[in-house]
Amino acid sequence: MGYTIEFEPIGRRGECPEGATLLEAAQALGVDLVSVCGGAGTCGRCKVQIVAGVVSPLTERERKALGEAELAQGYRLACRARLLGDCRVHVPPESLTAPQRTQVEGLQVLVQPDPAVRAYEVRPKPASLADPRADEVRLRAAMLRAHQLEPVRFDLALLQQLSPRLRPVGAVHEPPLQAVHEPPLQAVHEPPLLSLALRGDEGVAVGTAGTRWLGLAVDIGSTKIAGYLVDLGSGQTPAAQGLMNPQMAYGEDIIARLNHAGKGPAEAARLQELLVAALNGLAADLCRQAGAQPAQIVDAVAVGNTAIHHLFLRLPVRQLAQSPYVPAVSSALDVKARDLGLAFAPGAYVHTLPNIAGFVGADHVAMLLATGIAEAQGLTLAIDIGTNTEMCLASGGQLMSASCASGPAFEGAHIRFGMRAAPGAIERVRIDGDRVSCQTIGHQPPVGICGSGLLDAVAQLRQGGILDRSGRLLDHPCVRQGDGGREFVLAGAEEGGGRAITLGQNDVRELQLAKGAIRSGIDLLLAVAGRRAEELERVIIAGAFGTYIDVASAIAIGMLPDLPLDRFQQVGNAAGTGARLALISQEMRRAAAELAGRVRYLELARTPGFARTFAQAMYL
Amino acid sequence: MGYTIEFEPIGRRGECPEGATLLEAAQALGVDLVSVCGGAGTCGRCKVQIVAGVVSPLTERERKALGEAELAQGYRLACRARLLGDCRVHVPPESLTAPQRTQVEGLQVLVQPDPAVRAYEVRPKPASLADPRADEVRLRAAMLRAHQLEPVRFDLALLQQLSPRLRPVGAVHEPPLQAVHEPPLQAVHEPPLLSLALRGDEGVAVGTAGTRWLGLAVDIGSTKIAGYLVDLGSGQTPAAQGLMNPQMAYGEDIIARLNHAGKGPAEAARLQELLVAALNGLAADLCRQAGAQPAQIVDAVAVGNTAIHHLFLRLPVRQLAQSPYVPAVSSALDVKARDLGLAFAPGAYVHTLPNIAGFVGADHVAMLLATGIAEAQGLTLAIDIGTNTEMCLASGGQLMSASCASGPAFEGAHIRFGMRAAPGAIERVRIDGDRVSCQTIGHQPPVGICGSGLLDAVAQLRQGGILDRSGRLLDHPCVRQGDGGREFVLAGAEEGGGRAITLGQNDVRELQLAKGAIRSGIDLLLAVAGRRAEELERVIIAGAFGTYIDVASAIAIGMLPDLPLDRFQQVGNAAGTGARLALISQEMRRAAAELAGRVRYLELARTPGFARTFAQAMYL
Repeated sequence: MGYTIEFEPIGRRGECPEGATLLEAAQALGVDLVSVCGGAGTCGRCKVQIVAGVVSPLTERERKALGEAELAQGYRLACRARLLGDCRVHVPPESLTAPQRTQVEGLQVLVQPDPAVRAYEVRPKPASLADPRADEVRLRAAMLRAHQLEPVRFDLALLQQLSPRLRPVGAVHEPPLQAVHEPPLQAVHEPPLLSLALRGDEGVAVGTAGTRWLGLAVDIGSTKIAGYLVDLGSGQTPAAQGLMNPQMAYGEDIIARLNHAGKGPAEAARLQELLVAALNGLAADLCRQAGAQPAQIVDAVAVGNTAIHHLFLRLPVRQLAQSPYVPAVSSALDVKARDLGLAFAPGAYVHTLPNIAGFVGADHVAMLLATGIAEAQGLTLAIDIGTNTEMCLASGGQLMSASCASGPAFEGAHIRFGMRAAPGAIERVRIDGDRVSCQTIGHQPPVGICGSGLLDAVAQLRQGGILDRSGRLLDHPCVRQGDGGREFVLAGAEEGGGRAITLGQNDVRELQLAKGAIRSGIDLLLAVAGRRAEELERVIIAGAFGTYIDVASAIAIGMLPDLPLDRFQQVGNAAGTGARLALISQEMRRAAAELAGRVRYLELARTPGFARTFAQAMYL
Repeated sequence: MGYTIEFEPIGRRGECPEGATLLEAAQALGVDLVSVCGGAGTCGRCKVQIVAGVVSPLTERERKALGEAELAQGYRLACRARLLGDCRVHVPPESLTAPQRTQVEGLQVLVQPDPAVRAYEVRPKPASLADPRADEVRLRAAMLRAHQLEPVRFDLALLQQLSPRLRPVGAVHEPPLQAVHEPPLQAVHEPPLLSLALRGDEGVAVGTAGTRWLGLAVDIGSTKIAGYLVDLGSGQTPAAQGLMNPQMAYGEDIIARLNHAGKGPAEAARLQELLVAALNGLAADLCRQAGAQPAQIVDAVAVGNTAIHHLFLRLPVRQLAQSPYVPAVSSALDVKARDLGLAFAPGAYVHTLPNIAGFVGADHVAMLLATGIAEAQGLTLAIDIGTNTEMCLASGGQLMSASCASGPAFEGAHIRFGMRAAPGAIERVRIDGDRVSCQTIGHQPPVGICGSGLLDAVAQLRQGGILDRSGRLLDHPCVRQGDGGREFVLAGAEEGGGRAITLGQNDVRELQLAKGAIRSGIDLLLAVAGRRAEELERVIIAGAFGTYIDVASAIAIGMLPDLPLDRFQQVGNAAGTGARLALISQEMRRAAAELAGRVRYLELARTPGFARTFAQAMYL
């Protein structure tokens, strides 16, 4: 029994079974609904409006999550409402995950290209009755002759393509072929000049001479993926592109995804296949931009946090999602791309950088690589702010890393009008007396507030004396009593498309939790190292979110230590840069493995003084 | 537009499209019709009788291939008759490929077990907040501690199974899991004792302690497959089994299969998948007999002729099927079993022995290995008789191999009443004056004559003076004028189920071609080596067909040189034995590679004196 469901204004429609939730229907039809909690009914982000049709009755959770006005307008949570008839559903912009800003630029670091895969031009001798050696043997002999190199093995998929490449088109006769041994045919053709892509002693791809062999570096974030297509010969990056991580359909929260994958092999497979399909699409797009084919990609490097790393490699995740948070794998791996479902060159590998711990993954290692922090002499802090924030304190080659659960407030979750950095999101706030000015992404009418806007707003409220040190909203002409307590009106209903955008007391508390987690992490790292914040010579802020924050605001609310602004450096996607370095240079792969082994991992929750430091760091 | 077709007496029925040939219908419904020429209409072996229904009109080819009586009874060639309505078709036993005798026994050769994969018992330390290292790192450390061995890498599929194996059932909590860092849980479980299967420096499988790790050796013949399940710890063979090669549905003739595979990737894939499905079934059967699971198979060795080898690995075949008959690959390969579609242990490999040339494959190398011919001091000949006959002449470590197209006469093709060694086949013939006695396989009423019977019959006819030296049938009470010329009646219509089984003048000519090819091969090898037949100290006859022939008859017709019978040794499936040796012993793999490089390949057709020797060898 199935019903027709239509999503407006996207115009996606299709049949779904009776009793399916609207979130499941959206996922089945490829509508990217926000779902931070993965459908558990707790985040309240998958709001949709029922325009027509029959769905299941309102639940208690929805009554709590939705305002009176929203309930009156037929708003529901897509993860709670179930299909009981044909349906038409309106999806408000803040409930859609795309389009969003993604970031692919990063640090420019120069290294000597020393890729794992190198190309060699070679012309095997033609086959004849006098020289009927196997094609593979003649290729091997030609390599030895021309380059004094003997490939020990060829990837099977390469061998499956080799013989036709050694023969000019039309040189092989048409069937039917003869069963008897024919008399010597003097059809000896000069084989074309070939380009053999060799990885160590293994042949991984073969093409015509001059084939441009490419590599792909990807930084797979929980939310966003950044891809870089690299020319392995020159080390140049002819194309780069970002896209959303499609696994978000199963929860923006990474733990929701781990829980989903932990349900069974089919669920884990689905999450992995979604990601791989996105990466294949990304590779195809990048190749199109560079005038190439994915079959030219002979090597790849992937980085991500430990959870993403495990979901990507379909490694077990249940032991990772609970104490003591043990990764299945932390060493760097070299895996055949085809074993993951990636459609690259026949024998291409994917190299994954090492993880350090359950909450400090390969993306952190890549960031350390790109920032060169291991070589820093003065006291240096590198920090990548996100739902999980990883940081590393370095001095004279000593490295100590930690991770804190800063939560998804910066991504807009658990914030009444929170949203990710999409068009219409308030990203900058200035409060001057009674006057509030907001700047939105794309200069659209405001529909919500994103992380950098939230940071700005709280900093301005604090500086304007509208928030006290404990985070309590004081009286002010813009502060009013709302559904869920006191709130500050950022944009009136006339600007916000009939709906005021406000910052509530609870929203401020959420931000305090997030910034408190980050600041206590910094303070504990410094304390364990026996150093003071003022000694920090450099603070490197990496990652997409870190690029957009106003450092002064972050200092104002106490998220970052109060240092001269010129000590801060916002470097963009350093993890992506690190992935590119490891793609171009084997020396960098060795350095990454060495780094991962050298980093001291500090488990913050077990560090003496944790509770006190955290409580202290919550103050504004 | 489709019609229903039913095959009697098998009772297989199904729908097939209008215009499909009855052979295509049979293949689609899994009816194993004989098809030597692969549907080209030339072999005349796919006879079926139309019981009811409408098929396309009789073709000229069928008029030639079928006798008057058969035409009157509604016999047709399945590859020519096309479906034009619902149909009921009777399949005579001689048109069915199964069941047939297969052979799995072989030489008993003792070697010191030295398998590529070895098992190690190991108990990793439990994970805790104080030791949150990755599971893979703890396994590595435990290997180093217990065995002073450090696996350099683990197969990804092993890593995908590892974490749950390190934890007792129930030790991992049930979801939902928590997003926050939990307080230290002191749920420290002692991990179970594990058995790690290590191949060189790569972990390929992990199981509970005491897991019996197995290997599979397969000899893939054009017609038959022999499989051996080997305990890699003891070197014993707990189970062995034979089955038919399902690729026969695409032509018994290997060239027909190469032509089919050469049509395109889909056809090549189909042939490979058929074979792999049979091997997976064989592995499952063997494991059932041994009380084990295919997931315990951690290593495999496969041998076959060069064409089968290429079809199995899905290597290009078009260059192999025409002069100068160049293999894509001749070196030994180690391929992940999963890359071929084989469902063994996670990281299991398949080792394929090296090929020597287009018509001298890995099965020949395996035979050389099993017979130990390289160590023979006296002049020794080893010969494996089949559609293609490979032979090797050895003396004091010098090896020279050749191959001759002996044709499918021994398999029953191109012989009027020829059939393979199935129940009802005449396998022994004695002629005593006017009295003819025939022995059939399974002591069934005679339905045809198989290779060994044909050999016997011709030898007896020659010895009885009924054939002259040139092969001409002379007058005799049992010689009569048949449809296709003079013929000798082996079994009268009263014995043959209403149909006399005869041996015609053309059948004798076919046998002369086959035995002439083999004998000229032997003579040319001896000539090139500068030796005489009388110097042969030992003649090893390998392969299923060779096991069943009467050596005296083979000498009588001049197929084998006239030597004392005690110099001949019928060794059964030596190729299968060689595959087992390579499975048990890495030393044997090295020996095989060395042998393949050492063998001098003699291209008979280019050898001086070929035509004269061949003509001479045709005489009886």
